[in-house]
Amino acid sequence: MNEPNLDQLFNPQRIALVGVSATPFKWGSIIPLNILKGHYKGSIFPVNPGLERVLGHKCYPSVQEIPGPVDIALVFTPAPTVPQIVEQCGEKGIPFLVIITADFSETGPEGAALEKRVIKIARKHGLRLVGPNSMGIYSAQTELHALMPPTMPLKGQVSMFSQSGNVGVQMLAWGADEGIGFEKFVSSGNEGDLDSADYLAYLGEDENTRVILAYMEGLGSDLDLYPVARAASLKKPVLLFKGGRTRTGGKAAASHSGAIAGSNRIFSSAMHQAGVIQIQTSQAMMDCAKAFSNLPLPQGNRIGILTRGGGWGVITSDACEESGLSVPPLPEELIKKIDPFLPSYWSRGNPVDMVATISHDPFLECIEILTNWEDIDAVIALGAVRATMKFPFSDKVTGPPEVLGAIETALEFRKAMTAQPDAILGGIKKLIDRTGKPIVAVSTGPDSLHRETLRDYQVVSYPTPERAVSVMAHMVDYAAFKGQNERPTSNIEH
Amino acid sequence: MNEPNLDQLFNPQRIALVGVSATPFKWGSIIPLNILKGHYKGSIFPVNPGLERVLGHKCYPSVQEIPGPVDIALVFTPAPTVPQIVEQCGEKGIPFLVIITADFSETGPEGAALEKRVIKIARKHGLRLVGPNSMGIYSAQTELHALMPPTMPLKGQVSMFSQSGNVGVQMLAWGADEGIGFEKFVSSGNEGDLDSADYLAYLGEDENTRVILAYMEGLGSDLDLYPVARAASLKKPVLLFKGGRTRTGGKAAASHSGAIAGSNRIFSSAMHQAGVIQIQTSQAMMDCAKAFSNLPLPQGNRIGILTRGGGWGVITSDACEESGLSVPPLPEELIKKIDPFLPSYWSRGNPVDMVATISHDPFLECIEILTNWEDIDAVIALGAVRATMKFPFSDKVTGPPEVLGAIETALEFRKAMTAQPDAILGGIKKLIDRTGKPIVAVSTGPDSLHRETLRDYQVVSYPTPERAVSVMAHMVDYAAFKGQNERPTSNIEH
Repeated sequence: MNEPNLDQLFNPQRIALVGVSATPFKWGSIIPLNILKGHYKGSIFPVNPGLERVLGHKCYPSVQEIPGPVDIALVFTPAPTVPQIVEQCGEKGIPFLVIITADFSETGPEGAALEKRVIKIARKHGLRLVGPNSMGIYSAQTELHALMPPTMPLKGQVSMFSQSGNVGVQMLAWGADEGIGFEKFVSSGNEGDLDSADYLAYLGEDENTRVILAYMEGLGSDLDLYPVARAASLKKPVLLFKGGRTRTGGKAAASHSGAIAGSNRIFSSAMHQAGVIQIQTSQAMMDCAKAFSNLPLPQGNRIGILTRGGGWGVITSDACEESGLSVPPLPEELIKKIDPFLPSYWSRGNPVDMVATISHDPFLECIEILTNWEDIDAVIALGAVRATMKFPFSDKVTGPPEVLGAIETALEFRKAMTAQPDAILGGIKKLIDRTGKPIVAVSTGPDSLHRETLRDYQVVSYPTPERAVSVMAHMVDYAAFKGQNERPTSNIEH
Repeated sequence: MNEPNLDQLFNPQRIALVGVSATPFKWGSIIPLNILKGHYKGSIFPVNPGLERVLGHKCYPSVQEIPGPVDIALVFTPAPTVPQIVEQCGEKGIPFLVIITADFSETGPEGAALEKRVIKIARKHGLRLVGPNSMGIYSAQTELHALMPPTMPLKGQVSMFSQSGNVGVQMLAWGADEGIGFEKFVSSGNEGDLDSADYLAYLGEDENTRVILAYMEGLGSDLDLYPVARAASLKKPVLLFKGGRTRTGGKAAASHSGAIAGSNRIFSSAMHQAGVIQIQTSQAMMDCAKAFSNLPLPQGNRIGILTRGGGWGVITSDACEESGLSVPPLPEELIKKIDPFLPSYWSRGNPVDMVATISHDPFLECIEILTNWEDIDAVIALGAVRATMKFPFSDKVTGPPEVLGAIETALEFRKAMTAQPDAILGGIKKLIDRTGKPIVAVSTGPDSLHRETLRDYQVVSYPTPERAVSVMAHMVDYAAFKGQNERPTSNIEH
């Protein structure tokens, strides 16, 4: 089949909800509620022959009774009824179905036979299916939250398809916690019809999608995936988190999605060739999503490091070398430039160790000097937010007036410190825009701090330097792939 | 020199503060303030010839004027004055000095010469030194917070020595965020006198210390370290985070602490032989500290996995195999035991995938069956807290009464879900105590959730399964080291 245009699937104007329920805690009740809660911009048409009205809407006995065209139908009815529903949707001319209903190929041969029947009916009508066994879809453009859990993603430019609904919706939820906004999401379920290659091809072309996340277990379509993955990767970063990389994981995947894991080594090397960014942990997936969707790519692997404490500079340097990044020595002329405004015993090298210099100005000045340095492709700035320097002096301390006075002064100091983000984070953002080089901040502190840093200053930050380095290494790899493929190849082909 | 007894250093009754200052934001003012703020149980004696009183205390012109004995002196005076201070402290018979003052061997040959002089004077008096260039010490027993930053660690059973003050105090602060309590801490600074081997030897014998954390850069003492590290490791877990593992990191370390990194391969293999647990990232350091200080050791590498979503089971399985852990197949009799209370299409294997079963009872029952299973050494339970299932329905939704009614019901559901931790987390704790097997929970959600889970239920939890697996792999390795060295070796020696 040709690549389907999924615009209508992700941005439907009119949705049928087939099998909507008035009973709380059934998916036929929860998902419609999530759609309402999400302030969906289009119209919904509940379908259930046993109900007159539901959730404040007229309820239709069948999809045929819905007046006018329908873009997609969400199906919640029990598995044995699905063939008939698909038939009716086909007759109505609905182009896309999202089958939430489970108990198909994932549960054994009987379910697989039923799934086959469903697909056959869909093909007959030219109808395309998401699922079965899908946890739903999300779209920022139409504010469509057709999802099982009540996740409310942030709007943004990251799109995702996931063979595991749980993994996918968890990443939407983490994104909301960390300030990573999503544009489109689909839980692809059993992929009876539309599969990972279809979603990847579509999202690769989608103008609103800047970064693609993929969670995949099955490799049934790996031969089809390569050209699609390469075409998408040439346009935008594709972050792939592969479940079933090992024998143990593959066995678990077989019982989960029925997916055959195949040889991971072959698959992984094909994906590498295709320019796909392969991610090993769920945390790294989110870390990378944040950086790739917010930062320019580095043009090489040379890193400038700024730190307020020597030990952290050492740790960051170790992580860089272990990740294939280089930390070039600071040239004499830059040492001379930095000398005047740091204490005499500063590191005089890269990492630039500010040796506990507390004030803001030298910090920003050092970042600027590092970023402008032509032998550097990216900067990692430790201590940009300085959450560790919060002074917990608000607790009651008893003592004579001079103790309390000293504490008062410390509180004023804290106030000055919390004003720092404005100066430094604002400066970082401007530097990125001016130089086109990525700068990543590292600031200990809770998730909420990093979300706010991103929201208020568009600065990407992580709680440990190793996470920043790992992200940077992935960006360097991807930039190298892009660079190799953007160069004119005519000389070679001659 | 013989191993010094550091009891008096960590739990002093009477402290001299030499170079105390009335000027805010000098270390001679900040550190005394932190001691007061920490409600230190002993007595402080500020020393400064220019002041009559400071911070509500009488100020002495020199240590000699302090009436009665002094256990330790903290020194903040400028570097050139330190030899004279040490001389005076020696004459007064003070056994331990903590030299906060910097500008010694870490800044060049001149500083190194000064440091040598200081050590020589100390040796003459039989006086032992922490530092110079130390960020201070902390002790839970005497509530001593003699630290540069205003960190207030939780009390607990983890002790740490760190060649980087910044790295060390950051870990104290993270510990407070994550619920990991500390017993003793020392920023060892330049280690002019007392060094990592001394601290390790002492903490290895310290009855109040259950887990030792070490951040080290220099390897000057690696030959001395092996027997000490082995003796300590036989008693309790020693978690070592080594800075300067790479050429790049080693160069940074040389400019930071002046430490010579040496051959990391030789050092690392010696530490492995000694039973030391070698940690690669700062995040893993805290993750391991939490598990080792709160859980029994697994007796082997066989892991039972419980999950509410298949994809997460796959991811956990992959991480297990990649970390050398085994996920044995579930025997038929356990499948039969679980069958009655899970949906018919559950995974029927290990990972036990509860396929979105929401209620509490089966979850706890499954954990119990897995933990009691004799072919399993540890259990990883995903979704024990279910932070993802929070229902954000409190926002305003407009609509007819039936919509609002449905939302009301959803809110009640959410209330029931948040009651879940009591049942499940309480049950997990009991199971650990009864079986002696470690159970690690995985629950998405912010740091605060994991801190509360630990504080309120003594259950160790992490936000991603990969972090739980990585911790478990370290525990398995350490348990194997302990097991090998606890077995009678007489047969081999005969």
